[in-house]
Amino acid sequence: MSILARSLIGSRDGTPEGTGFRAVNPATGESLDPQFHSANIEDVRLAAQLAADAFPVYANLSGRARASFLRAIAAKLESIAGSLVERAARETALPLPRLQGEVGRTCGQLRLFAQVAEEGSWVMARIDRAAPDRQPAPKPDIRSMLRPLGPVVVFGASNFPLAFSVAGGDTASALAAGNPVIVKAHPAHPGTSALVGQAIRESIRESSLPEGVFSLLFDAGTSVGTQLVQHALVKAVGFTGSQAAGRILFDLAVRRAEPIPFFGEMASTNPLFLLPGALAAHGEKIAADLYGSFTMGAGQFCTKPGLLFLGAGAPSANFLKVLEEKVSSATGFTLLTSGIASSYARQTASREQGAKAKLVARGTAAQSTIPAAASAALFQTDISTFLDDPNLAEEHFGPSLLVIPYSHKQQLLDCARSLSGHLTATIHGTPEDLEEHAELVRVLETKVGRIVFNGFPTGVEVNHAMVHGGPYPASTDSRATSVGSLAIYRFARPVCYQNFPDEALPEELKNHNPLRIWRLVDGESTKEPS
Amino acid sequence: MSILARSLIGSRDGTPEGTGFRAVNPATGESLDPQFHSANIEDVRLAAQLAADAFPVYANLSGRARASFLRAIAAKLESIAGSLVERAARETALPLPRLQGEVGRTCGQLRLFAQVAEEGSWVMARIDRAAPDRQPAPKPDIRSMLRPLGPVVVFGASNFPLAFSVAGGDTASALAAGNPVIVKAHPAHPGTSALVGQAIRESIRESSLPEGVFSLLFDAGTSVGTQLVQHALVKAVGFTGSQAAGRILFDLAVRRAEPIPFFGEMASTNPLFLLPGALAAHGEKIAADLYGSFTMGAGQFCTKPGLLFLGAGAPSANFLKVLEEKVSSATGFTLLTSGIASSYARQTASREQGAKAKLVARGTAAQSTIPAAASAALFQTDISTFLDDPNLAEEHFGPSLLVIPYSHKQQLLDCARSLSGHLTATIHGTPEDLEEHAELVRVLETKVGRIVFNGFPTGVEVNHAMVHGGPYPASTDSRATSVGSLAIYRFARPVCYQNFPDEALPEELKNHNPLRIWRLVDGESTKEPS
Repeated sequence: MSILARSLIGSRDGTPEGTGFRAVNPATGESLDPQFHSANIEDVRLAAQLAADAFPVYANLSGRARASFLRAIAAKLESIAGSLVERAARETALPLPRLQGEVGRTCGQLRLFAQVAEEGSWVMARIDRAAPDRQPAPKPDIRSMLRPLGPVVVFGASNFPLAFSVAGGDTASALAAGNPVIVKAHPAHPGTSALVGQAIRESIRESSLPEGVFSLLFDAGTSVGTQLVQHALVKAVGFTGSQAAGRILFDLAVRRAEPIPFFGEMASTNPLFLLPGALAAHGEKIAADLYGSFTMGAGQFCTKPGLLFLGAGAPSANFLKVLEEKVSSATGFTLLTSGIASSYARQTASREQGAKAKLVARGTAAQSTIPAAASAALFQTDISTFLDDPNLAEEHFGPSLLVIPYSHKQQLLDCARSLSGHLTATIHGTPEDLEEHAELVRVLETKVGRIVFNGFPTGVEVNHAMVHGGPYPASTDSRATSVGSLAIYRFARPVCYQNFPDEALPEELKNHNPLRIWRLVDGESTKEPS
Repeated sequence: MSILARSLIGSRDGTPEGTGFRAVNPATGESLDPQFHSANIEDVRLAAQLAADAFPVYANLSGRARASFLRAIAAKLESIAGSLVERAARETALPLPRLQGEVGRTCGQLRLFAQVAEEGSWVMARIDRAAPDRQPAPKPDIRSMLRPLGPVVVFGASNFPLAFSVAGGDTASALAAGNPVIVKAHPAHPGTSALVGQAIRESIRESSLPEGVFSLLFDAGTSVGTQLVQHALVKAVGFTGSQAAGRILFDLAVRRAEPIPFFGEMASTNPLFLLPGALAAHGEKIAADLYGSFTMGAGQFCTKPGLLFLGAGAPSANFLKVLEEKVSSATGFTLLTSGIASSYARQTASREQGAKAKLVARGTAAQSTIPAAASAALFQTDISTFLDDPNLAEEHFGPSLLVIPYSHKQQLLDCARSLSGHLTATIHGTPEDLEEHAELVRVLETKVGRIVFNGFPTGVEVNHAMVHGGPYPASTDSRATSVGSLAIYRFARPVCYQNFPDEALPEELKNHNPLRIWRLVDGESTKEPS
């Protein structure tokens, strides 16, 4: 498949008239062909109108038909995996194995949502049967289920050019729920985005779906995104990116005449608590693994552990020694874009020059020929400085870690209580440590979406139980996750039918339960007919 | 129980120092004892702090304990039902049977949420078990469930002094999910609010719960509400009231440094579509019943049908004749407050004097001695005027109805598509009518939360399947309902635990499933151990 350097507006191609831009290889500075062009307001309007036109048809497609469409996309992505990985590597400097894994993850996500849509119970069908003889008034028959919202806008993320981008989790969950999707491609990887977009467009054609089920718009700047979020026909937004950009778009979404749900997954520092038993038992192993976690993907994971609370004393000295050695001997990393690299360098220098933390170790400087080069950095501060300065807990996107030694449990609790929202928190400890720190767990439950025990947060499983979200600013709505099958609930709303004849009800709510889904009938969960 | 005319701040009484105000009997203009006082910013801060202090204890109470607390409140309300009804009648002019019914409904809601909390499956427990041998990386054990958000602020509504007020559905659902609640009492019925608040406070004491689980703040104005919504310790808001007030508070909630979910149930005109078969078969009966529905509670239901789309022709003339006679012979109604009555009179006069609709019938003028008096009003307009002027579809709070005759199906669809969000839509028709108008149902599914067939929307069942919400401006979040057991999902968020030892997991997620709740284990719904 060759790259079509056009916005994909349903089955139509955007014009090459807007501002031109190209992807840049962050490892070489090379500008990559082809040139892309920013979409314009007419493109936005057409994409929104086509999506709205497609909605009634797509929303009423069976779960099985939507599943088959999602699986077709996955199969098509697999068939072009080689080109995808090759292009994504040049656009992101992420290593090939990581990108190969990301193709697998993206297809796995599409298939998970296909399975959810096909199985069908996700709609939370509920039936309260009539009681015509009830006094003082007859009890009507009431049946409810989740229905899609309408056109959903998805913003592709820079750090996962596939799994959180054009056919990523936001798109897969919105499509699975029955919503047309308009993706605003991330300008750092337009070629990868175009290839994936073309695969979706072909799957739409082969599945004979309305063209407006999917559009892909390019933009070198921010106007397409702001127009999309404000368009009256758009009914929800999924976003993964920085807190600054996410908050601007969130504000637009909630200030509309008709506010719409905005699901932004933004900033997270993912605190890690290393408890005494684990530190004493295998601190050095944890130090090595932690190094691997916070530098994985050059520290550009949403779930990168950026804060370490470490007990004082002899074992912690050994622990720190390992970490320092690892960081000092690290060779330079390449970040996703030169912009991200400048921002990382600026934040690192500012922390190094400031009085709030000291630089403990620093990796080897990268070659000056790499425009997005960065080196790993290990900082340390003390509890009281940490508690006094909330900036120290903010996300530092790149391979850096801030260590905060503590002396007793109360300090840990104070720190945990001081945290704002994060995606994850991690505890390393023995079972006894965990029992001793039960209150820490209770506090963390109110601060994050996922608590990891004796592991690292950088691996995010895609399954039914995963929660990838958390209180603000980790996400704009802590009641949502952007990874895992629960993500589908972001893009649906309940509708109930009162006293409808059986034949006029959606399949999910008919008496004989033709889809054999789980339903709540008079308060009891069952697959039986009602 | 006698009325304590103080804000209830946990177990402490507010001071009688703020602006004094009294309830006014809308039927007589009589000012009612005792005098209440607006709370102040210190009261707001204390209530928020006590709620935040209570949260860790209350959030970790078992579902059974929360259920027993909710049932204690219901029992206490029943024990003071006489005083409650008597006081509410003087504060609202609502008829005694209606208020007696509302006590029952309020207690029924509390018991429904008690049952949901006790049964426990509402937390959507999900378990994806580990696979240590998975390649290329071991699969961790991931378990998630819904957890409460934190302190919730509830705004009592004017039109349901019990069921949508201090111990109404918002409070019951927030408490059931494990959140402390701070209620801002509606100033039109402070005595009723005080009695209910005292009942909740006593239940807290008898259940030995932390005092901050519940507070009740009075305010003659709007500053307590705005301060509560903006308080950093408050994590969500439930609101029932006007679109103007709801939007102001929504804007405050989403403009906070940490935006919080705001569930506002606001304006709805509840269109009714009378299809040809039903009109021909029993139009006159429907006319009489419709009169009963739009004048029920003096037209002050959120679900009052305010728009009627009526086929042209002979049967519709008979239908209209019945409706006109009913309205013309109606004696005056008493609205909830003189403010609501003035607003109703102003809107009615403006519509009568304007060119967009004609007044077809008007009820008898009420006695001039009743300050909140109002008369029923029947208006009519034509399709093209209706489609040209969105104001005609706006909520008119009180006993009025706007009739829009139509000649063919396409006009009905055009009107339906032109609608903004409403709580309900109603269709009267034969099964053949419904089949013929399947597309109308598809359109209405995107416009409302509940579609009623051959009934009236003014009865709102409290059960598992009910949806009382809808696209904006019916509610600020169409993904939520404020009535029925689904309402609990507004006040909870998912948290997941990765590789936790069984003994450190919440009961809901332990291997042997001690609570015997429904869980999704490796994608399969089951009550079995995992």
